[in-house]
Amino acid sequence: MPVVRALIFDLDGTLVDTVYAHVFTWQQALAEAEMPIDSWRIHRRIGMSGGLFARAVARELGRPLSTSETDALQKRHAELFEQMMPHCRPLLGAVELLRHLREAGVVHGVATSGARPLIDDSLKALGIGAETVVIERGDVARAKPEPDLFLVCAERMRVSPHECYVVGDAVWDLLAARRAEMLSIGLLSGGYGEDELTRAGAYRVYHDPAELNDSLDELGVLP
Amino acid sequence: MPVVRALIFDLDGTLVDTVYAHVFTWQQALAEAEMPIDSWRIHRRIGMSGGLFARAVARELGRPLSTSETDALQKRHAELFEQMMPHCRPLLGAVELLRHLREAGVVHGVATSGARPLIDDSLKALGIGAETVVIERGDVARAKPEPDLFLVCAERMRVSPHECYVVGDAVWDLLAARRAEMLSIGLLSGGYGEDELTRAGAYRVYHDPAELNDSLDELGVLP
Repeated sequence: MPVVRALIFDLDGTLVDTVYAHVFTWQQALAEAEMPIDSWRIHRRIGMSGGLFARAVARELGRPLSTSETDALQKRHAELFEQMMPHCRPLLGAVELLRHLREAGVVHGVATSGARPLIDDSLKALGIGAETVVIERGDVARAKPEPDLFLVCAERMRVSPHECYVVGDAVWDLLAARRAEMLSIGLLSGGYGEDELTRAGAYRVYHDPAELNDSLDELGVLP
Repeated sequence: MPVVRALIFDLDGTLVDTVYAHVFTWQQALAEAEMPIDSWRIHRRIGMSGGLFARAVARELGRPLSTSETDALQKRHAELFEQMMPHCRPLLGAVELLRHLREAGVVHGVATSGARPLIDDSLKALGIGAETVVIERGDVARAKPEPDLFLVCAERMRVSPHECYVVGDAVWDLLAARRAEMLSIGLLSGGYGEDELTRAGAYRVYHDPAELNDSLDELGVLP
């Protein structure tokens, strides 16, 4: 049985405080396209791939979306998001957690359904440089809840899936982790309730990156 | 044993889709006052009275707030909210639900921790006129999770507390309902998870006003 020693982080809602701005700007983009949908339904879909997200929303609205409509929605959402949140704010303890992992030599990476260049500001705010493995939407064919992002991240970090914890705030992270045969850690910092994360398979649930940083001993990842 | 036949509605997150905008603008107001706090912690405090909310936030930040600081924060939040959301959007099914209740002659009212004039646009968007009892922050000494708003609303509707269901999206609504000895109905439309609402004492949980409207039979409120 391999030792779990590496961490794969989701980005939005897990390391940066961007979920609520994503909800608001997705709602705006959809409303402009005459697809009114309530915020809470958007919130519970954030973290899926943008394409899956748009299709899920369309299903709730009862009409299919063409690929060009999906693309236009994603483009408009990205524009509105950059206007609303030109600078992404790290969640409490996120910068310190990542610094701690680097200093302690704990293998870690980022795997996000978001795409460059939209995620670049977040990575910069977190102090994540070129030495850290970052797998984004463009690196895989299928994003969360498919396991591809996490599997490619593990491969690039040269560890086996069984050696990784996934850290995420959304049920899509935790469901994708199970598909990847990885244990997962839920954070409440994306606005889901604790039971939702536990039911999606979280091995442990913490408030935010700060509490995770204080709990690394429990997880056995420190050398 | 009295028949439960009246409904008391919370406003934000229960009838209008405003919770996410409140989260974002509270965060802005707090950041401007050099009180950075993560969105999810604000989300879980929305629906309390503004004063209690500001004090709870201050406690998390580890420094007390003066009354004038609390007042200034509330004023700034109201300004930012009106800029961000000049027109409040009813949640799915809210307008139809209220019309249904009026036409069926079901006694109902609104009891909100929000205050006029900030709530006026929401009431208008919902088609709530002068014939409906609306109890707001200014009508009571203590807002949710104290039971005062609900008790005054019942009194003004001339029904006993035991004859009322409270309908709300936040745990503060459901906790205040228990203090008022009223049954409560949780809605997911404010972004809490189902288990959070059930644990706070919800008798039933529905998705949104639309599902509640389709479920009035279950509750026994229709004449």
